[in-house]
Amino acid sequence: MHIVVTAVGPDHRGLADPIIHHVTGQGANIAEIQMYDHDERSLFAMLLRMELPAEQFPGLRPALEEIGRLKQLSVRVWSAEERAARPRLAICTTQRTEPPLALLRAIRDGRIRAEAAVMIGNRPHCRSLAEQFNIDWHQIDDGQGEPDDARLIDLCDQYEVDYIILARYMRILPAESCWKYAGGRIINLHHGLLPSFRGMRPYHDAYASRMLTFGATCHFIVPELDAGNQIIYQSTYSVPPGTPIGEVIRLGQEDNEPHCLVEGVRRVVNREVQLHFHRVVANKKE
Amino acid sequence: MHIVVTAVGPDHRGLADPIIHHVTGQGANIAEIQMYDHDERSLFAMLLRMELPAEQFPGLRPALEEIGRLKQLSVRVWSAEERAARPRLAICTTQRTEPPLALLRAIRDGRIRAEAAVMIGNRPHCRSLAEQFNIDWHQIDDGQGEPDDARLIDLCDQYEVDYIILARYMRILPAESCWKYAGGRIINLHHGLLPSFRGMRPYHDAYASRMLTFGATCHFIVPELDAGNQIIYQSTYSVPPGTPIGEVIRLGQEDNEPHCLVEGVRRVVNREVQLHFHRVVANKKE
Amino acid sequence: MHIVVTAVGPDHRGLADPIIHHVTGQGANIAEIQMYDHDERSLFAMLLRMELPAEQFPGLRPALEEIGRLKQLSVRVWSAEERAARPRLAICTTQRTEPPLALLRAIRDGRIRAEAAVMIGNRPHCRSLAEQFNIDWHQIDDGQGEPDDARLIDLCDQYEVDYIILARYMRILPAESCWKYAGGRIINLHHGLLPSFRGMRPYHDAYASRMLTFGATCHFIVPELDAGNQIIYQSTYSVPPGTPIGEVIRLGQEDNEPHCLVEGVRRVVNREVQLHFHRVVANKKE
Amino acid sequence: MHIVVTAVGPDHRGLADPIIHHVTGQGANIAEIQMYDHDERSLFAMLLRMELPAEQFPGLRPALEEIGRLKQLSVRVWSAEERAARPRLAICTTQRTEPPLALLRAIRDGRIRAEAAVMIGNRPHCRSLAEQFNIDWHQIDDGQGEPDDARLIDLCDQYEVDYIILARYMRILPAESCWKYAGGRIINLHHGLLPSFRGMRPYHDAYASRMLTFGATCHFIVPELDAGNQIIYQSTYSVPPGTPIGEVIRLGQEDNEPHCLVEGVRRVVNREVQLHFHRVVANKKE
Repeated sequence: MHIVVTAVGPDHRGLADPIIHHVTGQGANIAEIQMYDHDERSLFAMLLRMELPAEQFPGLRPALEEIGRLKQLSVRVWSAEERAARPRLAICTTQRTEPPLALLRAIRDGRIRAEAAVMIGNRPHCRSLAEQFNIDWHQIDDGQGEPDDARLIDLCDQYEVDYIILARYMRILPAESCWKYAGGRIINLHHGLLPSFRGMRPYHDAYASRMLTFGATCHFIVPELDAGNQIIYQSTYSVPPGTPIGEVIRLGQEDNEPHCLVEGVRRVVNREVQLHFHRVVANKKE
Repeated sequence: MHIVVTAVGPDHRGLADPIIHHVTGQGANIAEIQMYDHDERSLFAMLLRMELPAEQFPGLRPALEEIGRLKQLSVRVWSAEERAARPRLAICTTQRTEPPLALLRAIRDGRIRAEAAVMIGNRPHCRSLAEQFNIDWHQIDDGQGEPDDARLIDLCDQYEVDYIILARYMRILPAESCWKYAGGRIINLHHGLLPSFRGMRPYHDAYASRMLTFGATCHFIVPELDAGNQIIYQSTYSVPPGTPIGEVIRLGQEDNEPHCLVEGVRRVVNREVQLHFHRVVANKKE
Repeated sequence: MHIVVTAVGPDHRGLADPIIHHVTGQGANIAEIQMYDHDERSLFAMLLRMELPAEQFPGLRPALEEIGRLKQLSVRVWSAEERAARPRLAICTTQRTEPPLALLRAIRDGRIRAEAAVMIGNRPHCRSLAEQFNIDWHQIDDGQGEPDDARLIDLCDQYEVDYIILARYMRILPAESCWKYAGGRIINLHHGLLPSFRGMRPYHDAYASRMLTFGATCHFIVPELDAGNQIIYQSTYSVPPGTPIGEVIRLGQEDNEPHCLVEGVRRVVNREVQLHFHRVVANKKE
Repeated sequence: MHIVVTAVGPDHRGLADPIIHHVTGQGANIAEIQMYDHDERSLFAMLLRMELPAEQFPGLRPALEEIGRLKQLSVRVWSAEERAARPRLAICTTQRTEPPLALLRAIRDGRIRAEAAVMIGNRPHCRSLAEQFNIDWHQIDDGQGEPDDARLIDLCDQYEVDYIILARYMRILPAESCWKYAGGRIINLHHGLLPSFRGMRPYHDAYASRMLTFGATCHFIVPELDAGNQIIYQSTYSVPPGTPIGEVIRLGQEDNEPHCLVEGVRRVVNREVQLHFHRVVANKKE
C-alpha cells in the first residue's frame, strides 16, 4: 500500500527522527523523503512516501498521530487507496461560480467518481451553489475576504477530505497548509498557461504580449517549487486579432476554465496521474 | 490607395529627406514613418506608409526608384491593393515538407486565393514539392545550407512577390532583408508558442518546463522588435502526462504546424489583418 | 545645430505632414523620425531629430508652435545646445529625500553644471529641501498622492526646463508626457538593476532571488520601449550572506541611489551621452 | 559534529532505508534529508545532514561505506570539521588562467587557508600553472576537450578533496557528480550576474541588454535547483556608455573574475557560509 505521511513541526531538529524511526521499525520501504526548512517563517516540514503491507495501515495512523501529540508535530497519514472508489473533495471558491458548478455537475453526472464532501468560500458568492447541490458550506473569511487558513485545514481534516480543489479560489494557501496536505492532494485551477503566465492577471498579461492563444492550467500545488512542473492538464483557445480583452476573458471563464478543472480533477481521482518527486507522472495502468 | 515605401541606405543622413520630399510634394498623406539606425551593422532603413490617390500610384514607383538610383538607396514601393485578388507568394523552405505542402494544397484547392510564384530552399528537401506543383524552384545555399540572403531578396524582386512565406525556413533573415520587405510582407511559421518559447527548440523548451500544451505561431517578421507582438494566428494541442517528446514533436509537425501556417497566410492574403505601427490589427470589413 | 521636435496630436493622420513639410522646406537635414500610434489610448506622437543652421533656430520654434495651434498639435522645439552651459532641471520627488538632496548639493558645489529651476512633488516630503535650497516648490497631487500629470508638464513648460529628473518620483509618467519631452529629456532613477529588476520592489525582488549584489540605474525614459536599453549609469554594492533586507535597503537608499542619480545627471548635462534611435550613445568629444 | 552523507544508487527503492537505519541506530540527530529521483537519467540520490558526537565519526565512515558495498550504493561521508584548519581543494580549469592563478596566489600568501591538493583540466592551458606552483596535474579530456566526468570524481576521492573549485571550468558537471559531492562541496565561478545572466555568454547577454554593470558570481552547485539561490559572493564593475564588448570582457576576466573567485572560496574555507536546505546561510561566529 502506498502511503503519504506529512509532518509539520516547530523546528527542523526532532522533526524527522521519531517518524522515520517508527516507520522503518515497521518495515516500511521508503520511496521518498523531502524535508523543508523555512526558517524565515519558522516552518519546518517533512513529506514521506512509502510502501507498507495494507494490513499494517490501520495501525499506522494512530501510532503516528500519537507520536505527533508527544513531539508537538502536526502529523497526517494518507493513502489514495483508502477511498480510491470514491475520494472525498473539498471545493474551495471565491467569486467565480463556473468552475465549481462544472465540477459539481460532473460529479452528479458520474463523469467524476468522487464525493463533494464540503464547499468552502472566502466570499459568499458560491453559497447558493452549495445549497443547490445540497453540500455543507462554510464561509471562512473575516468579512473582508481574508480567509482563516487554519480553519480551512481544520475543515478538510474534519470532513476527512482526500483532495482539496481550489476552484478559482483566489487566495494563496500558506506554506504550512500546503505541507499538511502535501503529496498530490491540493489541485489548483490557474486561469492562464503555466509557466508563462503566473500572476493574478494572466488574461491581461497574455493579451498585453499580443498573444492570440489563451489557456488555463490544472496543477498540483507544491510549496516553493515551480508551479509549472506540476501540470495535470492544460486547455487553450484562440481568438482572432482585434478581439477585445473582455471577450477573451468571457470565453475563458465561461467555457475553457470549467472544462480544464473538470478534466484535471478527473485525472486525479481516477489516479491516471500522481505526484512523484515533485513531478506529475502518468500511472501505469493497474 | 494605401502604399508602403521602404528604403535602405548607407547612413541615416540623407535617407529620409529625398523620399519624404517627393511624396509630400505629391500630396501623400503620411500615416506612419519609422526610421532605424543599426550603426553597429551599418544598416539604415526607413518604412513609410501613406495614402495617395490610386491614379498617382503608377507614377510613384519609377519616380522613387529613380531617387534610389541617384541617392544610392535601395527603394521598394508596394501596395497590397495592386494584386489584391491574387497576391504572389515566395515560399521559403529548409527541410520540413509538411508546412509548404499544406500551403500548396490550400492554394490549389482555392482555400487560399494566392499564387505560389516561386519556391526557395537553403536545402534540397522541398525541391520535389516544387516539381509536383509545377513551381519554379531555386536553391540558394552554398552546399552546406548557408543561404545567399541577397539572392533570396533578388528572387523575390524578380518574381514580383507580394509576400515572403517562411514555411519552417530555419534561417534568420538579416535585418537588411527584413527592412526591404517591411510593412507586413514577411510571414513566418514558428514551431512554438510566442512569446514564451522563442528559440530554435521550442518543443524541447516547453517540454522541459513540463507543459502539456504545445503550439505554433504564424507572425509577421519585424526586425529588432519583439516577435510576440506581431502574431497573426496561433494554434495549440494538448497531450497527456507522460507523452514522449518524440510523439509531441510528431503531432506538432505533421498536424498543428501545417494548419497554423495555412490559416495565418489565409488571413494575410484575404487582408483580414495588417501591420500597423508594429502591431497586427484586424482590418475593418471593406 | 541639433534640434528635437516633438508633436502630440489627436490622431495619426495629419500629425506628421505639416511639421515635416515645414522643416524640409527650411532645408533641415532629418536625422530621425519616429511616429507612435497608441490607438487604445488615443495617443499619437512624433519625434523628429534634425540638423539646421543655428541662425534658423530662433525662427523655427514660433513657426512650429503656430502650426501646432492651427492643426491642434502639441508641439515642442528644443535644442540641448541652447542652454548647454547651464541647463535647467525640474526635480520631481515623492518621499525619499536622499536622491534630490544629493543632486542639489552637487549643483551647489559645482559638480553638476545645471540650474535647479523647480522642484515638484506628489507628496509634501521634499518641500523643506526646496526651501533650504531656495527653489520654487509645487505640490501637484490631489491630497492622496495622485499627481496631476498635465500640471507637471505645464510647470516644466513654464519654467523652461531642459531636463525632467525623476529623483525617486514614484509615479509612472503617462505616455503623453513622455512624448512631449521625448528625445532624452526625462531622466529616471530606478532603485534596482535594469533590466533584471524592473518592478516597484526591486530590492525585495533581488533579495528573494538571493542575490548578494544590489544596484540602482539611471536611465532615459522612453515610452513603451524596454527601459533596459536606455541606461546612462548603473552603480552597485555587495553585502555578505545573511544581511537582513532592511540593511540592504538602507545601504541602497542612503548611499548607492544618491550617488547613481548624481553621476547619471552629470553625464547628461555634460552631454557625455545622448539618446540616438532609442539607444544611449557616448558623444564624441567636442 | 556536523556530518554530510551522500548516496547515489541504481533506483529510489532501497536507497534510503539502510543508511537511515544505521545512522538513527547510532543516535544521530537528522537535520536534513533530501532525496532525488531523476528517472529519465536513472539517477537516484540522497543527501543527509546530521549531528553525531565527534567520537563516533571515525567508525561511521567505514560502516556506511560497507553498507554501500553491500547495497551497491556509492556512499560518501564527510565533515567540514575534519580538516577545518586546512581543507583540501581540487581546482578544475579549462582555458582561462586568471582565476586559478589568483586562487593559487591567495593560498600561497596565506589569504586562503587551504591546500591546493590537485589541479584538473579538460584542456592543457593551465598545466604550466600547476607546474609553477608544484601541484599535481591531471588532464581528463579525450583530446577534444570532452572530460571524463567519472575520472574527475575518482581524482577528488583519491586526493581526499574537501571542496571542488570550478575555476572557469567550462563544462557542466553531470547530476551524478553533483550528488556525490553534494552538501556545499562544489564551488563554481560564473562569469555573469546570477540569476539574471545564466548562459554560456553572460558578458554578451548583459551587453546586448545594454547594461553598464557587469559582474561575476561565486556559488555552490546544487543539481536541478536554481543556481541563483546558492550565491556565496558577487562582484561587479561599471563601464561608460560606448565601451566596446572586448574591453568589457577584458576588464571582467583579468580583474573582476579572479577577485570574485578568491573571495568566494575564502568565505567557504573559513566557514563563514554554509549550505542549509539549498540556501547559503551565514554561520554564527564560533
